[in-house]
Amino acid sequence: MATPERIRRAADLIAAEAEAGKKLAVIVSAMAGKTNELVAWADVLGSAAQGAPPSDDEYDVVVSSGEQVTAGLLAITLRNMGLRARSWLGWQIPILTDDRHGRARIVDIPGERLGAAIDTGEIAIVPGFQGVTHDGRLSTLGRGGSDTSAVAIAAALTAPCDIYTDVDGVYTTDPRIEPKARRLPRIAYEEMLEFASMGAKVMQSRSIELAMAYKVPVRVLSSFNEKPPEPGQGTLICDEETDVEQRIVSGVALSRDEAKVTLLGVPDRGDVPAEIFSRLADANLNVDMIIQSPAMTAGATNMLFTVGRRDAAAAEKLMREAQAGIGFQDVRLDTDVVKVSVIGVGMRSHAGVAQTMFQALADKGIAIQAIATSEIKISVLVETARGEEAVRALHAAYGLEAA
Amino acid sequence: MATPERIRRAADLIAAEAEAGKKLAVIVSAMAGKTNELVAWADVLGSAAQGAPPSDDEYDVVVSSGEQVTAGLLAITLRNMGLRARSWLGWQIPILTDDRHGRARIVDIPGERLGAAIDTGEIAIVPGFQGVTHDGRLSTLGRGGSDTSAVAIAAALTAPCDIYTDVDGVYTTDPRIEPKARRLPRIAYEEMLEFASMGAKVMQSRSIELAMAYKVPVRVLSSFNEKPPEPGQGTLICDEETDVEQRIVSGVALSRDEAKVTLLGVPDRGDVPAEIFSRLADANLNVDMIIQSPAMTAGATNMLFTVGRRDAAAAEKLMREAQAGIGFQDVRLDTDVVKVSVIGVGMRSHAGVAQTMFQALADKGIAIQAIATSEIKISVLVETARGEEAVRALHAAYGLEAA
Repeated sequence: MATPERIRRAADLIAAEAEAGKKLAVIVSAMAGKTNELVAWADVLGSAAQGAPPSDDEYDVVVSSGEQVTAGLLAITLRNMGLRARSWLGWQIPILTDDRHGRARIVDIPGERLGAAIDTGEIAIVPGFQGVTHDGRLSTLGRGGSDTSAVAIAAALTAPCDIYTDVDGVYTTDPRIEPKARRLPRIAYEEMLEFASMGAKVMQSRSIELAMAYKVPVRVLSSFNEKPPEPGQGTLICDEETDVEQRIVSGVALSRDEAKVTLLGVPDRGDVPAEIFSRLADANLNVDMIIQSPAMTAGATNMLFTVGRRDAAAAEKLMREAQAGIGFQDVRLDTDVVKVSVIGVGMRSHAGVAQTMFQALADKGIAIQAIATSEIKISVLVETARGEEAVRALHAAYGLEAA
Repeated sequence: MATPERIRRAADLIAAEAEAGKKLAVIVSAMAGKTNELVAWADVLGSAAQGAPPSDDEYDVVVSSGEQVTAGLLAITLRNMGLRARSWLGWQIPILTDDRHGRARIVDIPGERLGAAIDTGEIAIVPGFQGVTHDGRLSTLGRGGSDTSAVAIAAALTAPCDIYTDVDGVYTTDPRIEPKARRLPRIAYEEMLEFASMGAKVMQSRSIELAMAYKVPVRVLSSFNEKPPEPGQGTLICDEETDVEQRIVSGVALSRDEAKVTLLGVPDRGDVPAEIFSRLADANLNVDMIIQSPAMTAGATNMLFTVGRRDAAAAEKLMREAQAGIGFQDVRLDTDVVKVSVIGVGMRSHAGVAQTMFQALADKGIAIQAIATSEIKISVLVETARGEEAVRALHAAYGLEAA
């Protein structure tokens, strides 16, 4: 919801949906720039003297107002078009959350009153991102909170959920890397989670997890749509079972936010991995891949793990400090790597998926520095310069191009 | 609350008051320009197509957010200074209002929870202007609503109320007209009501009425104060009995928003006044003074009334339409008049107040066009060009100059 003009366009879309007889709850975000303005004020006033962070519960009082304004304005706009509409603030529904202000999690949404209102044909406008704690304070859900609000409201109403974003669906890979990338009509929740954790900005992992838990069908649509979506538009995120396409691989993802830390000559003792990774966890450093290679010399092995690039220096420093105590020979940091992953629920039941991947990369002469696999994903580390080429090679190898 | 800088200055004042051991509830307005921005959006979106007014309950959802933001920011600022503070939104206290959205009246404020919090030494920050209806919708109190909120919260807490305004108190008259005008240390509620209805912008009549009803002592102070107020600063609005000054006249007020309508040769029948003023009332025209002069010729009299200038043309038109039916001879409209009033609760018990007024004006050769009196006020209409001179003459005649 960028501007009053965008609110009016959203209202046109909503009106068309309502005229088609749909019962609607509409979850809205703040107007463009408003949340940043509010956050800036809170930061200026909250951190002047002691450098302390702004107080989180009052921060929520400030920043949640942006969505409240959009909700009221959209309701005004719809009524002006002759429709019945009202705003439902987080505390009015209520959207009950825990009290971790600024990053609260939804605990419960008693949807009876909201559902009854919608059943009368009234359009419900719900400000996203906001909730209320059990002791009646305002809370906010953190980044991507409006998507989470939308999925949670859909779950409470046992309704499907359309998410309007700045893309028109989920693609087999980033179209800026591979122009032949194809929009997926459907994708399984698990696959979407893997895409999201790869940095695909379509939806936050939290909202997808919630959709999966409550089996909410979520359709990703473009917010630039002028008309209500046709069947088959966008991408439907749904249960694996309802995905009739039966693909083996759904897409290829590239993550550039990778740094590789290698520990050389690590003593081959059972307590060593726990020792290493508890130190990283205590420092709140998020580790992704972990690979322990077979012992090279008697009693010693090499170990490799990856962290986000912003954590790379801290991870290296921690390992240097631990080197003597744990007794490994050396630490190497390499930030010149990217992670390429192929994702697909179909690989659960199909052999040869990994083999196809390795062969395709070998054919291009791209060296694989590390491999990690999960049930529905195979990831490899390659040098940064070859990352996009690897994506294109794999996109072709699995036949993902547009027809 | 104009800017983040003003919020910080307010926080300094509040901190000084808190360090002096005071228990505080602070009622805040929106930041400069914010309410206008919100109102403009609501107007743009609410009146495009059919020229309909914006829907009032959703209008309240939009515009009440301005005060919410200030409340959160002030709480953040105070906590950053090491003080305990929290915001209390209208629905959290709750400030219960009727459902006349956009101009709601406060029905009840159960102040127990708020009072208990303040008693622990926590500073309560309350957004002004907003409340909540019995069915849990947001409401706003209309123009001057923050003053009304402040007085109502003070009443609920049985506490005195300081109002920070853009003047440093109530004056015997407008200092721009009479530089010798003197700040009144105290003024009675009834006098303040008369000043307010004269257009003195210090406080809205509604908030003064509320203070009078609940006997809340209200002190008017300058928001440009850098330090907590000293005793005797500003103007205390209080019960007549606690006003030890025993003045006869407290001040002189000038109202320029006056138009005089004269009906000539009105039939001297009992039903005629009702006929005339019911027509004006039906058209929602607010009549102030009404004077019926003694019959000039047998069976006919002249009648004079005043309305606000913006209603003058409408009043004249209505009277022209009624002329034949009621049977008066002519209608005259004169917008070249102002109203000068002397106000004072002391005149209840003192004779000769009117005489002093008429003599002072006669000495200056200022013609009195009409006279109206109430228990604590005498008003005269004079020509516009002589209005300020009349104010100065009366200010001197009643000895109101600064010592």
